[in-house]
Amino acid sequence: MSINTNDFYSILASKAEASAIREILKLIQNPEVVSLAGGLPDPATFPAEEIREIVNHILSNNSVQALQYSTTEGLPGLRKSILDYLSTDGIKGNLENIVITSGSQQGLDLTGKLFLSPGDVAIVELPSYLAALSAFSSYGGELVGIPMDEEGMRMDLLEEKLIHLKGEGKKVKFIYTISNFQNPAGVTMSLSRRKNILEIAQRFNLFIVEDNPYEKLRFEGDHIPSIYSLDDDGRVISLGTFSKILCPGLRLAWMLGNEEVISKITLLKQATDLCTNILSQMIAFEYFQLGKFDKNIKSNVDIYKEKRNTMLKSLKQHFPPEATWTNPQGGFFITVTLPDYFDTGEMLTEAVKENVAYVPGSPFFADGKGKNTMRLSFCYPSLEEIEEGVKRIGKVIKRKIKKS
Amino acid sequence: MSINTNDFYSILASKAEASAIREILKLIQNPEVVSLAGGLPDPATFPAEEIREIVNHILSNNSVQALQYSTTEGLPGLRKSILDYLSTDGIKGNLENIVITSGSQQGLDLTGKLFLSPGDVAIVELPSYLAALSAFSSYGGELVGIPMDEEGMRMDLLEEKLIHLKGEGKKVKFIYTISNFQNPAGVTMSLSRRKNILEIAQRFNLFIVEDNPYEKLRFEGDHIPSIYSLDDDGRVISLGTFSKILCPGLRLAWMLGNEEVISKITLLKQATDLCTNILSQMIAFEYFQLGKFDKNIKSNVDIYKEKRNTMLKSLKQHFPPEATWTNPQGGFFITVTLPDYFDTGEMLTEAVKENVAYVPGSPFFADGKGKNTMRLSFCYPSLEEIEEGVKRIGKVIKRKIKKS
Repeated sequence: MSINTNDFYSILASKAEASAIREILKLIQNPEVVSLAGGLPDPATFPAEEIREIVNHILSNNSVQALQYSTTEGLPGLRKSILDYLSTDGIKGNLENIVITSGSQQGLDLTGKLFLSPGDVAIVELPSYLAALSAFSSYGGELVGIPMDEEGMRMDLLEEKLIHLKGEGKKVKFIYTISNFQNPAGVTMSLSRRKNILEIAQRFNLFIVEDNPYEKLRFEGDHIPSIYSLDDDGRVISLGTFSKILCPGLRLAWMLGNEEVISKITLLKQATDLCTNILSQMIAFEYFQLGKFDKNIKSNVDIYKEKRNTMLKSLKQHFPPEATWTNPQGGFFITVTLPDYFDTGEMLTEAVKENVAYVPGSPFFADGKGKNTMRLSFCYPSLEEIEEGVKRIGKVIKRKIKKS
Repeated sequence: MSINTNDFYSILASKAEASAIREILKLIQNPEVVSLAGGLPDPATFPAEEIREIVNHILSNNSVQALQYSTTEGLPGLRKSILDYLSTDGIKGNLENIVITSGSQQGLDLTGKLFLSPGDVAIVELPSYLAALSAFSSYGGELVGIPMDEEGMRMDLLEEKLIHLKGEGKKVKFIYTISNFQNPAGVTMSLSRRKNILEIAQRFNLFIVEDNPYEKLRFEGDHIPSIYSLDDDGRVISLGTFSKILCPGLRLAWMLGNEEVISKITLLKQATDLCTNILSQMIAFEYFQLGKFDKNIKSNVDIYKEKRNTMLKSLKQHFPPEATWTNPQGGFFITVTLPDYFDTGEMLTEAVKENVAYVPGSPFFADGKGKNTMRLSFCYPSLEEIEEGVKRIGKVIKRKIKKS
């Protein structure tokens, strides 16, 4: 007799459900559909030929290391190279402050596992990165959202909420922020806010988890010091990744933090996947050795900047005046806000009929709001597709605008 | 003021502690020390040149796919190839029954996450694979061990224990078994026991998690059908890996199970690492396409069989008559049992002074026993090192034998 699998799930696993929207977007196999939904990097940014040469070299000269098990904390040479590379941004640290992870998603998962018992609170931005919310929820963490404006998370509302949560006896563990060119909002936290959030974290004694995948993809304006670089208490954990500056297929990222955090994360990682793909680590290490990163990042910035410009121009041209949108100085994403009576989740079916896709905003909001917002990605589609896609969405929106 | 990191750990993370023995073994940097401790495959079994050619081909012809994000469930072609390959062993299933994981360790971790709420019971063998025990414990699972004999887990004791646990109101979720050439015991579950465990799992309505990394590394005797292949209820989950038949560096493995299990595991994996390294997946797929697996496995079997023979011969020659050991028909490991008054954990320091290392047995025992056992690995060391290592351990043991 067939087993009834549902009866066996853990409490947390039984709560995990596939996102309805992700399922809809999965079904879009029609090549006619222009997708502004996904967050995939443009393959034109992958240095494929250089990677081929590097792998050839590694497997000709050092195949035993490249194909064997490796240490959980990651290749020392790579960890050193990352620290050296980040030192120009004011990041200090030694090998005990960094662990290599199998993509930043693993870093988020391990962060959840490290900090969150069921009922513990993680503060997140409204909106925030969907897969981070999933990772934290998967350990029973309670997500409390704080609205953002053009300078990032609202510090006045953060403080208010923390006082309220304290009064309720809630155990808040950390504040999660994507400080640069946020996913999905596209906004960047200002320097004064970064100092402010650190001061608040000190006062309420909290960790800050700074997710920073897009920092190097800045199109204009000055680099803003990371919250991690401003911290002297060891209360910030920083997540960085090769997915957006080299390629995502390598599944390679890093976590920075105080020695206790990194040591415990390493222990948890050991039970999770033993070690990160060592060939990937050696590829990234060699890429550093060859001094290729700066040039590659510069060319990536040029590619994405042009795409961002095209999307902003198209939005201005094809979206009705009732719509507003963010103006990202880097990264991959723009968030559009429509009048309150819009439901972008419902509207997606209509959009797909017009051969265009986007991600409805609501799933990014830990408080379930944001139904009138959508995320548009300019990273993957061509310039023509960006313009055509925005035009098609604009058409659908205009049909639904209520004339007052 | 520095943050007090310890105050922030989740309940489960605060219980995770580095194994003292692992830490001792880590410190053995002395090249004079012959290690029979680690479980690393012999690099002579890695088809490095073939992999180099395959990667070259992939990155010349299909780099966009190889360097981009990929789907969580894994490359369909690879999943199909694995199913085809396993069909000769009576494994039935389609693409909905298989998910690619980032090493079998990820499969074990996700199994824990899928089934175990704190206090739920997982039945394990005494002894069992250390990192599986860690993975299950990391979700608060309670591990209940069942002794083994030369035919594997003792079914009479399993049944007795299940009745007892039922009486206590405990929620048992699954039985974890390494059915072939067990790590660390080196024993293989007999066919009659496999049928028996399935019957017991049906009667008590439990899942069986069959970890099967060494199945293809059989040195002699007939292939025994896997528990997975004997099951019609969808109550068995099977874990397989490329680590022992290709190389571990690729971090590539698979899970087989009923559709609900695989679909939920895929959902949990998405929040854990989004997707498995796609270049690794394409390498394994091409390796299947070129029809290389059978030849490579056959040559691996020859290598490991000779090493096993050398270890058995050396044990007979250098260990005192008071010691007994298992006689594995495949795999990587032998477990040695010494008289009751031995503590192999304490003895390790002495052994290291004699320039030899092994893994003390106690950590493999969920019930904390096994102090008088040790695991010896014949997979990594050379034939000379195996003989010399066994000789040195034999010397230490003989010194500690009490004459009656």
